[in-house]
Amino acid sequence: MKIRIGICGYGNLGKGVLQAASIADDAEPIAVFTRRDPRALQASCPIEVRRVSELPQWQNRIDVLVLCGGSAKDLPNAAPALAKQFQTVDAFDTHAEIERYYQALACAAHDSGHLSLVCAGWDPGLFSVARSLFDACLPNGNNATFWGKGVSQGHSDALRRIDGVCDARAYTLPIPEAKAAAERGALSVTDPQKTHKRVCFVVARDGADHRKIADAVRNLPHYFAGYETEVKFLSQAELERDHAGLPHGGTVLYHGYTANGAHHKLALNLRSDSNPFLTGSILIAYARAVARLHERGRIGCLTPFDVSPADLSPHTSEELRKRFL
Amino acid sequence: MKIRIGICGYGNLGKGVLQAASIADDAEPIAVFTRRDPRALQASCPIEVRRVSELPQWQNRIDVLVLCGGSAKDLPNAAPALAKQFQTVDAFDTHAEIERYYQALACAAHDSGHLSLVCAGWDPGLFSVARSLFDACLPNGNNATFWGKGVSQGHSDALRRIDGVCDARAYTLPIPEAKAAAERGALSVTDPQKTHKRVCFVVARDGADHRKIADAVRNLPHYFAGYETEVKFLSQAELERDHAGLPHGGTVLYHGYTANGAHHKLALNLRSDSNPFLTGSILIAYARAVARLHERGRIGCLTPFDVSPADLSPHTSEELRKRFL
Repeated sequence: MKIRIGICGYGNLGKGVLQAASIADDAEPIAVFTRRDPRALQASCPIEVRRVSELPQWQNRIDVLVLCGGSAKDLPNAAPALAKQFQTVDAFDTHAEIERYYQALACAAHDSGHLSLVCAGWDPGLFSVARSLFDACLPNGNNATFWGKGVSQGHSDALRRIDGVCDARAYTLPIPEAKAAAERGALSVTDPQKTHKRVCFVVARDGADHRKIADAVRNLPHYFAGYETEVKFLSQAELERDHAGLPHGGTVLYHGYTANGAHHKLALNLRSDSNPFLTGSILIAYARAVARLHERGRIGCLTPFDVSPADLSPHTSEELRKRFL
Repeated sequence: MKIRIGICGYGNLGKGVLQAASIADDAEPIAVFTRRDPRALQASCPIEVRRVSELPQWQNRIDVLVLCGGSAKDLPNAAPALAKQFQTVDAFDTHAEIERYYQALACAAHDSGHLSLVCAGWDPGLFSVARSLFDACLPNGNNATFWGKGVSQGHSDALRRIDGVCDARAYTLPIPEAKAAAERGALSVTDPQKTHKRVCFVVARDGADHRKIADAVRNLPHYFAGYETEVKFLSQAELERDHAGLPHGGTVLYHGYTANGAHHKLALNLRSDSNPFLTGSILIAYARAVARLHERGRIGCLTPFDVSPADLSPHTSEELRKRFL
């Protein structure tokens, strides 16, 4: 019996989830739900497309609903109500809001006998798992995480809202000296503002004042203020030619210490051509785990910390031992 | 209530486990069990030292027994009987024998209502977890694992049994061209014999024929035969000066592919000054998980695939979300 997957939201992430659900042997994409006019939506493979308002009628036809909305507004607004009707999984990633979001879903899911799992992308997600595993295996030590070079979609959106900006792309990348210090185990500050910089590629409106735009970018609170930020202007054609992809990546670096001064260094490295395709693929693994754990009676809200590798894998325990042990 | 840890075997690994159990806030090392004369054993911190033959009398005083014997003989011989009396955890690492060993412990532990967990070192162990996670998150892809540069203790022992050899150290290291091909996602063979080489440092007996020893090393079945093997002779003093440590490390490299040709590269890297201290520390994390899972009613035999990050961690779920999500 395949896991029946519903996809709520069909932006870049929804496309990634649909692709991943299509190729998984044990999953079946059932329907995409959108706030747009379903007739206007062209899915990448044949699939039922419905309005989100129809979701309640699909409760018996979907095992896990993958929530593909944005973390800024879509998920906090919509997820608690959906968690009362469906098993859900998402890649919520607004760090400062995680606990509040988690508690809202925990209440909603628990009271209605459902199971939700939040923050199941690559960071938070796979990187969180690495940080906690490294810490558990070598409790005397410290983690540092670096992101990029990669496209920050939320920051790109923020750029486009600035007066005089037609289109834009924001990259995040580690400051090389900070990364090198972390590699040596000599990083003194872990504040992302001191360890990362931003590079913004901006298409300005004809006649717009570039200096004014650059100032507005550098002072944008919550996004660029406090960061070393470079602003580069280019044409729409150049942006489309050189910045069409959504690559991302990063590193979790851990230095652990045991008796007699022995030093142990662990690192998880990621390079991805496509953040939404990677995240979509990870979400399907966590959707599998949610379906299995709910089947075994788990309700409430989980995070990637609560899931074993076996529950994420399409393979049986015997196969896992044979292939990966 | 701290997890009461028994340590069976007090070689390098037993010392690492004792240290790790001593510094864990939620664990307490109770006793070391040895086949040697307990009076002759000098532990690194104050601890009860007993003969292994006394183990049955300790069943009510130990929550998890960490098995620190060798994988070649000690564990297959002793572990099934111990799994009938204790929760056990070990770092069994003879790859070809894992399934047989797992089944023996699964029977013994299940029939007696106990829980065992096998292969909980770094490989098998952490690296196995990485291989399965990468595969689960990006099912269309392939893993390659490289070990070293590091000291292979089993291979060093094998060298010392060769006629004319007084002492020796065997290193394993990746063949650079193979590692570079794997980094690019272009590795055509994954057979360790084609991707790794061995470098042996040998102290020969006075007057021994170096060429004869080198030939014997290169042709030693199961250890060096089939590998590119370099044999270097040196004095006992040089061996002790330059090769006293037991460093090791390695890399799990994964290339995954999603729709539209998007490529995703994941890698877990490890460098450790001390293989036994690292492995001992990992074993204590898995001992914690075994104590918790048995408390919740699990019996039989597990592997690292069956354990969630939360079960390995000394921190609560709230702390994990706050610190690592």
